[in-house]
Amino acid sequence: MAPQLEPFFKQVDTSSEHFIDRLRKAVAIPSISAQDENRKDVFRMAQFLADELTALGAEVEQRPLGKQPGKEHLDLPPVVVARYGNDKNKKTILVYGHYDVQPAQKEDGWATEPFELTIDDKGRMYGRGSTDDKGPVLGWINVIEAHRKAGVDLPVNLLCCFEGMEEYGSEGLDDFINAEAKKYFKDTDAVCISDNYWLGTEKPCLTYGLRGCNYYSISVSGPAQDLHSGVFGGSAHEPMTDLVTVMSKLVDPQGNILIPGLMDLVAPVTEEEKALYPNISYTMDDLHESLGSETGIHPNKERTLMARWRFPSLSLHGIEGAYSAPGAKTVIPAKVIGKFSIRTVPNMESEDVNKLVFDYVKAEFAKLNSKNKLDVSLQHDGKWWVASPKHWNFSAASKAVEQVFGVEPDMTREGGSIPVTLTFEQATGKNVLLLPMGSSTDAAHSANEKLDRRNYIEGTKLLGAYLHYVAEEPMTE
Amino acid sequence: MAPQLEPFFKQVDTSSEHFIDRLRKAVAIPSISAQDENRKDVFRMAQFLADELTALGAEVEQRPLGKQPGKEHLDLPPVVVARYGNDKNKKTILVYGHYDVQPAQKEDGWATEPFELTIDDKGRMYGRGSTDDKGPVLGWINVIEAHRKAGVDLPVNLLCCFEGMEEYGSEGLDDFINAEAKKYFKDTDAVCISDNYWLGTEKPCLTYGLRGCNYYSISVSGPAQDLHSGVFGGSAHEPMTDLVTVMSKLVDPQGNILIPGLMDLVAPVTEEEKALYPNISYTMDDLHESLGSETGIHPNKERTLMARWRFPSLSLHGIEGAYSAPGAKTVIPAKVIGKFSIRTVPNMESEDVNKLVFDYVKAEFAKLNSKNKLDVSLQHDGKWWVASPKHWNFSAASKAVEQVFGVEPDMTREGGSIPVTLTFEQATGKNVLLLPMGSSTDAAHSANEKLDRRNYIEGTKLLGAYLHYVAEEPMTE
Repeated sequence: MAPQLEPFFKQVDTSSEHFIDRLRKAVAIPSISAQDENRKDVFRMAQFLADELTALGAEVEQRPLGKQPGKEHLDLPPVVVARYGNDKNKKTILVYGHYDVQPAQKEDGWATEPFELTIDDKGRMYGRGSTDDKGPVLGWINVIEAHRKAGVDLPVNLLCCFEGMEEYGSEGLDDFINAEAKKYFKDTDAVCISDNYWLGTEKPCLTYGLRGCNYYSISVSGPAQDLHSGVFGGSAHEPMTDLVTVMSKLVDPQGNILIPGLMDLVAPVTEEEKALYPNISYTMDDLHESLGSETGIHPNKERTLMARWRFPSLSLHGIEGAYSAPGAKTVIPAKVIGKFSIRTVPNMESEDVNKLVFDYVKAEFAKLNSKNKLDVSLQHDGKWWVASPKHWNFSAASKAVEQVFGVEPDMTREGGSIPVTLTFEQATGKNVLLLPMGSSTDAAHSANEKLDRRNYIEGTKLLGAYLHYVAEEPMTE
Repeated sequence: MAPQLEPFFKQVDTSSEHFIDRLRKAVAIPSISAQDENRKDVFRMAQFLADELTALGAEVEQRPLGKQPGKEHLDLPPVVVARYGNDKNKKTILVYGHYDVQPAQKEDGWATEPFELTIDDKGRMYGRGSTDDKGPVLGWINVIEAHRKAGVDLPVNLLCCFEGMEEYGSEGLDDFINAEAKKYFKDTDAVCISDNYWLGTEKPCLTYGLRGCNYYSISVSGPAQDLHSGVFGGSAHEPMTDLVTVMSKLVDPQGNILIPGLMDLVAPVTEEEKALYPNISYTMDDLHESLGSETGIHPNKERTLMARWRFPSLSLHGIEGAYSAPGAKTVIPAKVIGKFSIRTVPNMESEDVNKLVFDYVKAEFAKLNSKNKLDVSLQHDGKWWVASPKHWNFSAASKAVEQVFGVEPDMTREGGSIPVTLTFEQATGKNVLLLPMGSSTDAAHSANEKLDRRNYIEGTKLLGAYLHYVAEEPMTE
């Protein structure tokens, strides 16, 4: 039986200007976690959320995370946790978001003041943090408020976990989640994260998979100090030559990874999986628009999306220690460190990938007969994540999308990683759903970040509807 | 007939402490041409030289060069020109040096204050500019003074040309030399430049050749902005992959240039030339000491020195636009610019080299089937220079070395370039000799730059003796 959502929806429409005003207040707080001088603003933003939630009757705590590692003069911003409802007969849904933002300055190319929410005549609401991730976080608060104002009971117990360091590596969060999994979060039946984006601009999606990432360094060193290329060019082995030669053996210009055995680790694509791709609302024009160029590798959307979600990729990021400034300098760098990463997918285990990478890089270097020294190491890794899109958590979200937007959502993966997803899954043992609010054109992390009014208001309805459908789903794990 | 040099030599020994004091005063003036705030010190240093020369009876002028291009708030330091002697019956020798220095800060690894001349118990005189190039410049002034004090006539007319922008690209100097070639410098019979170094630490050398340098950029661009490797890795052509692949095709780890046809431009090595190398005072240990490692490519000194002086080399300097900081960033750079240079030798003409480079780079890129865009361009070039070591200018210098040091000098080339050498040769049409004062361990441009007391005092004798021998040589061009 479809839940009766009309009173809630109506209230969201009625309160929409108030909700936008709430976003305006939030955007005005420059809660930039990467800049020391804004740390006080990150704390102000935590207080803002705590006040809003408290005013709506939630039990709120600001949990301290101690000093910031490596920057001991700074306190980490608190995790704002909140409980709304404590009814044993209801499911408990844990929602996650973050209240810190990326840096932004007018000079970076913003058409408007980044910390003043500015709405144009197409309903595009510009402002740092509008889509990433203040809009979605406020969406949950709006849901509570609209239920209260409409006199509708929230059909689940809601647990909130809002952090303030997401844009700076989520310092301290993993430990907190692991510590609270059997305490504050112990009643959790399912997790919902709203911190990613639709694949396009029209059709909502539910995200059930993320690629992992193994990040490597190759360092090559020789002389004791940088050399003058006039004096030493031709008479000494040059670390840059060796490094560039080795890096050129990792991936070809068509994106094929050249490390033997690596592709054997990838789970075969099933027919069932293949069948998912043709229906996904995505075109090659979408790719070209997001690239700003027509430099895609693959001829069609199916192969493009599979390359992004379903297969590993290897990117060369840069070289540390070489000459990187504009202009001309005739240096032979003494030590250079090449950086590259591999996006991983099921069933690539990190240790297996590392072994293949290390063995291959060393073997390719040995072929060079260079007297320089090479080291290859893993800088960090993060595992891929794939959930079951047939879980009741996803079915509920899918029904909510149909109710609010009148379409079946695309079932998508993401090429990038959202590490907290895997942390929640492992710590709680429950299904995690990624339920995005913003669209692909929102420019998170860039200048002119925005959230469309439609995505915010209909997105608030979606989050609320999801709670109603999730309350009704039979719990068959 | 060997000239009578005893009174001059004796006076140099007698005045040695005074000459060292002169160097102390010069080192104390931080005439750093690259730093705006030191421009006044560069001018002070010009005045110091002018005062010293004037006091010794030279006719001195400080010639202005106008505003500094690109930094119009700064006046270029003057060229200090001086004439000592105007006797039509004497040869006229034009000597060049520079009075500006590289930056230096104690924190860069200096054991002593960089602008206080500090002499240790082995006679090593530490201080910025001691060897590069204040010691040699003062050497000429010492020569004049010692002759006057000893009552010995200077056997030639001396023309001095001391510039103050050498460490910042010799801004304005070429135009000045070309303009004055038939005016202030018109009587010049030969040119002597003391601004390089012995090959080792014991045996002086005369330098008759320099490699040229063609500096190139390869830019590869694709997407309109930097991309997230999670989102786009595998689905778009990456400029870094293309660039690294192309750069890996330029030179191999054994230093072999892979550009077809390039080595055909190199003049064949003659038997006569080969015969010069075995006698040169240089060992593989010298190479290893200067590298600070045993990463030389070649098995013996002959091949090592030929690789440095006689053959072209290609060095990869770095990549602009890629991620070059420490740490890990998962960026796909939108546009990357690879920098490399080729050291050129006779008979490589710049245009021929450029054509081979451009054609090859474009052909290699075409093989990649990438949709990205590649451009390759020349950033700057400087021609190689080779003088005849049999010219009377060199014979005179060789005899002077034998007189002062009791050994025949090594006839050397340099792998790097000293562009003013070619400018003087072309502008005056006269033979140019490079007659170094310092040794290979002097650490010019580095921390703890020094000039050995022996090199300074015996070097002053050498410069003076050279003027006597050059006066006696028959002028057979």
